[in-house]
Amino acid sequence: MNTTSQFISLVKDLFPQKNAISLHEPVFIGNERKYVLDAIDSTFVSSVGQYVNKFEEMIAKISESKYAVATVNGTAALHTALLISGVKSGDLVISQALTFVATCNAISYIGASNVFVDVDPKSMGMSPTSLSNWLKKNSVCKVNPETGLKSSYYLKTDQRLSAIVPMHTFGHACEIDKIAEIASEFHIPLIEDAAESLGSYFKGKHTGSFGSVGVFSFNGNKTVTSGGGGAIVTDNEQLAKLAKHLTTQAKVPHKWDFFHDSIGYNYRMPNLNAALACAQLEQLGIFVKNKRELAAIYSDFFKDVDDIDFMPEPPNNKSNYWLCAIRLKNKSRRDEFLKETNDNSVMTRPAWTLMTELPMFKHSIHDDLSNSYEIAERLVNIPSGVRL
Amino acid sequence: MNTTSQFISLVKDLFPQKNAISLHEPVFIGNERKYVLDAIDSTFVSSVGQYVNKFEEMIAKISESKYAVATVNGTAALHTALLISGVKSGDLVISQALTFVATCNAISYIGASNVFVDVDPKSMGMSPTSLSNWLKKNSVCKVNPETGLKSSYYLKTDQRLSAIVPMHTFGHACEIDKIAEIASEFHIPLIEDAAESLGSYFKGKHTGSFGSVGVFSFNGNKTVTSGGGGAIVTDNEQLAKLAKHLTTQAKVPHKWDFFHDSIGYNYRMPNLNAALACAQLEQLGIFVKNKRELAAIYSDFFKDVDDIDFMPEPPNNKSNYWLCAIRLKNKSRRDEFLKETNDNSVMTRPAWTLMTELPMFKHSIHDDLSNSYEIAERLVNIPSGVRL
Repeated sequence: MNTTSQFISLVKDLFPQKNAISLHEPVFIGNERKYVLDAIDSTFVSSVGQYVNKFEEMIAKISESKYAVATVNGTAALHTALLISGVKSGDLVISQALTFVATCNAISYIGASNVFVDVDPKSMGMSPTSLSNWLKKNSVCKVNPETGLKSSYYLKTDQRLSAIVPMHTFGHACEIDKIAEIASEFHIPLIEDAAESLGSYFKGKHTGSFGSVGVFSFNGNKTVTSGGGGAIVTDNEQLAKLAKHLTTQAKVPHKWDFFHDSIGYNYRMPNLNAALACAQLEQLGIFVKNKRELAAIYSDFFKDVDDIDFMPEPPNNKSNYWLCAIRLKNKSRRDEFLKETNDNSVMTRPAWTLMTELPMFKHSIHDDLSNSYEIAERLVNIPSGVRL
Repeated sequence: MNTTSQFISLVKDLFPQKNAISLHEPVFIGNERKYVLDAIDSTFVSSVGQYVNKFEEMIAKISESKYAVATVNGTAALHTALLISGVKSGDLVISQALTFVATCNAISYIGASNVFVDVDPKSMGMSPTSLSNWLKKNSVCKVNPETGLKSSYYLKTDQRLSAIVPMHTFGHACEIDKIAEIASEFHIPLIEDAAESLGSYFKGKHTGSFGSVGVFSFNGNKTVTSGGGGAIVTDNEQLAKLAKHLTTQAKVPHKWDFFHDSIGYNYRMPNLNAALACAQLEQLGIFVKNKRELAAIYSDFFKDVDDIDFMPEPPNNKSNYWLCAIRLKNKSRRDEFLKETNDNSVMTRPAWTLMTELPMFKHSIHDDLSNSYEIAERLVNIPSGVRL
């Protein structure tokens, strides 16, 4: 029995109820049915309701943030986070090439362009070294004569660098403290893409709480789900209010008048979805514990396997292990593994195609991305859902 | 007892179960609980699931269209409809100033600008006469030398007029057949904003099926709801495929690879919401019948009232009477009526602030909008929900 066959057997033992084992599927073993029926009975299933409020309170508490604003999905949360951070058309936003496309799409919605810096080989999230090196070589700091505020600009084109958006890849926190220091040094707002890292901590502090704004996702494939959903967190009351305003069509509150003071968005999470999310959030601790146990089993298994490395949580992390990941020795071995596992009803998948390889982002500014390329060629995500 | 007091008594008799009577709230008396629980039990609550497929089949059938694509809300449906119709940044899109802001926001998302033409005083939707007059005075037809295709351009600025977006206001169909003729004559794609008119027919044909693309909304205040939701309908297979592609992050289908071939959107309706919608759609006929009965009661009541007109369905309509509307003799009488009703827990509201009165659209191109202004000053929507 080769390594891959042994792995397939292990996964089938770990998820015995399933014929086909998915990468990550939700489990509904708490108050999901109760809360969703309650939302229906209340007739408040849409953009207003007690579960949306409760969801925001729970997310603020979990993420150790003062304010949370519920959105219709993670992409909407990213878009709104960029808007409230002051990103404008023509600006540049620094993110990572190893990420899900939503981050870069959201940047495009505003008419801003992506700059991609490399990831760290351990965390697979933005490398503080790469970020700092790129900024030192390519940016200049200027003072706005009217406001007295400093900003960084791209040397070659004089475009403003209006946000840094690192991502906590597969739930592992990147070195967000160092990135926050660099963002501060270069006077660039930090938006933390914590879409994958609800329940993950860096140096004991919850991910999403290091930037001026953090973003979470509650898509069906996440650690906890609302069907579709997202959230923005911040400690800044003005930013939170602006997020709420922009996500509710920029309507100025009034008992009956319809007045909207700017371009707005239909980005509010419906109460029906928030009801599901509230029940799921109650189980976040149990789910993360369960997923960490699974990671430990995988880690043990791959210790004895020569040509495959399990990707452990990086230093200073307590990771939610959203998607467990392994690294094979090269692309051809990776492709064999992908085929054999998927052919045997064990879903696995490679990392995302690097953003710089997609037609709409291939002309973006980027550094050498050597770690990103290596991960994109060798990494595989393996089944990581909560086991019942 | 004055007219307003009599009206308040009537509404309280019509909705006896409620202390505070809303403008329109959903009723869940069918399979809502069953289908939503079934979606939860299936674990498919997110962007893939049998209810999303079933919802699309039902919407296609109801709207007499070949294809339907489910979206996360009506604004997302409008945005996608504009994208698939070829609206580009810098273009002009003709809509109406008397509308909900979502239509104009969606146009802005693309970087296109609004042109507002007046509405018809009977239908309160786009006036074919105003549209035709504006186009005759302000546009020129040009042939693309490469494609041989004709388009209309705005004379003053040479901007392309890339879509006409009439709206079926409050559920009453505008003269969409005439508008379709004008759109065809001027070689401009017609997108039908049927967000409010599910269940409404014009000359026996369902609204949304006259344009090359139609758009519906399933927000909580609509005739039927999915919590949040929308749909695009079309008879054009290529447009339907493009809509599905753009609303699912422009991901190219593959068993495990992540490849996206253009800027895409997280606009797919979650299966949880589709489950609710499927149950609601089963009752559409009953709901519309119930709402038409209410409209008849209101119509009777206001027959004997001197200074208030009930707005009946316009000629050639079978309207869903989404929101019943009355017209008072002037703005000051309207404001008194709004205050007295709302103070007595009977929710009423004026028409939307005209788009040309909002700061972000006040510099838009428009005709005299005389009917729009008159309606905006005198109209009030009154409680219109399904009575149990």
